[in-house]
Amino acid sequence: MKKYKKGDEVSYTLGVFPTIELLKTRPEIVKRVIVHDSIEQNRGYEPIVTLCEQHHIEIEVHNQTINKLSPKGNCFAIAVFDIYEAPVSSLQHVVLVNPMDMGNMGTIMRTMLGFGYKDLVVIRPAVDIYDPKVVRASMGAIFKLNVQYYDSYEDYALEYPQLVKYPFMLDGAKKIQDIECVDDYALIFGNESSGLDSTFSKVGQSVFIPHSQEIDSLNLSMAIGIGLFHFSSGKF
Amino acid sequence: MKKYKKGDEVSYTLGVFPTIELLKTRPEIVKRVIVHDSIEQNRGYEPIVTLCEQHHIEIEVHNQTINKLSPKGNCFAIAVFDIYEAPVSSLQHVVLVNPMDMGNMGTIMRTMLGFGYKDLVVIRPAVDIYDPKVVRASMGAIFKLNVQYYDSYEDYALEYPQLVKYPFMLDGAKKIQDIECVDDYALIFGNESSGLDSTFSKVGQSVFIPHSQEIDSLNLSMAIGIGLFHFSSGKF
Repeated sequence: MKKYKKGDEVSYTLGVFPTIELLKTRPEIVKRVIVHDSIEQNRGYEPIVTLCEQHHIEIEVHNQTINKLSPKGNCFAIAVFDIYEAPVSSLQHVVLVNPMDMGNMGTIMRTMLGFGYKDLVVIRPAVDIYDPKVVRASMGAIFKLNVQYYDSYEDYALEYPQLVKYPFMLDGAKKIQDIECVDDYALIFGNESSGLDSTFSKVGQSVFIPHSQEIDSLNLSMAIGIGLFHFSSGKF
Repeated sequence: MKKYKKGDEVSYTLGVFPTIELLKTRPEIVKRVIVHDSIEQNRGYEPIVTLCEQHHIEIEVHNQTINKLSPKGNCFAIAVFDIYEAPVSSLQHVVLVNPMDMGNMGTIMRTMLGFGYKDLVVIRPAVDIYDPKVVRASMGAIFKLNVQYYDSYEDYALEYPQLVKYPFMLDGAKKIQDIECVDDYALIFGNESSGLDSTFSKVGQSVFIPHSQEIDSLNLSMAIGIGLFHFSSGKF
């Protein structure tokens, strides 16, 4: 087992929780499950054993592999999985233009799942969602989402002309509280430091989240969380 | 200079941005400003020089100190400051019961500032807000807030009987969208993993943020961001 590099055909979960999520959600892509010999004291061990038996996956005990892939320790299980394609399938998209932060990406995925959004579009250049750091930060939420990459926003928009586009911008034209929801839409967010460039104000109804002048902007995952909270209001 | 330890009488900012924020906001508590000799290429250097001149603070160039306090590199300035007291002063409080995560705490502070909340109450046991990791994660927001520790929630509540209490709980009695805002209130949030214990349902109007069943809970800083967004709505 080698450390993950972008472009590899397999990646892996680091930790008991995302391993269980993967085994529950996409068992067909799991190639191997490797555990540390001290896992038996972990309460996640039993569900891993049950799920592996159910899907005829052998559990290998191999401390060295675990220590190599997770040098900080505190990791008791790893599942190696095939990189898979999961194209978006509903008509309520979250679109991230050039997201670059792995931890943020994981948090965003988890928050999407929390507000019932399953379809994530990522415009390149962007973070590699299959990086184990993203998988870990998502706490396994990644396996329940569809994620589709595009090389440019234009490529994406051409495929989904019917969606109402809501680009989130610091100088958006309408404040979020005044937006009434439609059925089919894309919520579009820019890069962590630079946001969306000004051309996005023309792609749809630009939106801002009112905040004080004491900060330049909310952080990206916070803005997305608030956006999803507003747009999913009444759904749960 | 030694690495910060809980209980020390001084702490420090790590990085140009929080150092500028500190010099702007609370110059009177700054004891020393130390920079790396490569800071001259950094666009934050000029504001630091100007602020230090204005407040008669000498700038010391000392790479070794910087490297020792910020071993990961990428840090060009440090300001050493006296730990200070800043008791809460308005009647709109954010109350965190037993928060333990330093990065979360920084994000929460920044988000508070973003939604116009200046007063943070922290119930012990809790993270040490003066730890440089919190200061850094807050991007200097900490210096613009009042933060007051209490040994128990009861101690706090006795001092502020007039505030309407809104404990945020997974099984809260009312959903956040149905809460109408009052003038004086405390938004109360529990620990990152365990939340608030059930006794909090009796201290006021318990609130929940509706989300899907696919996640156990929103993460703490996300829940707080959404809470503050709702309660500050119309303010900006």
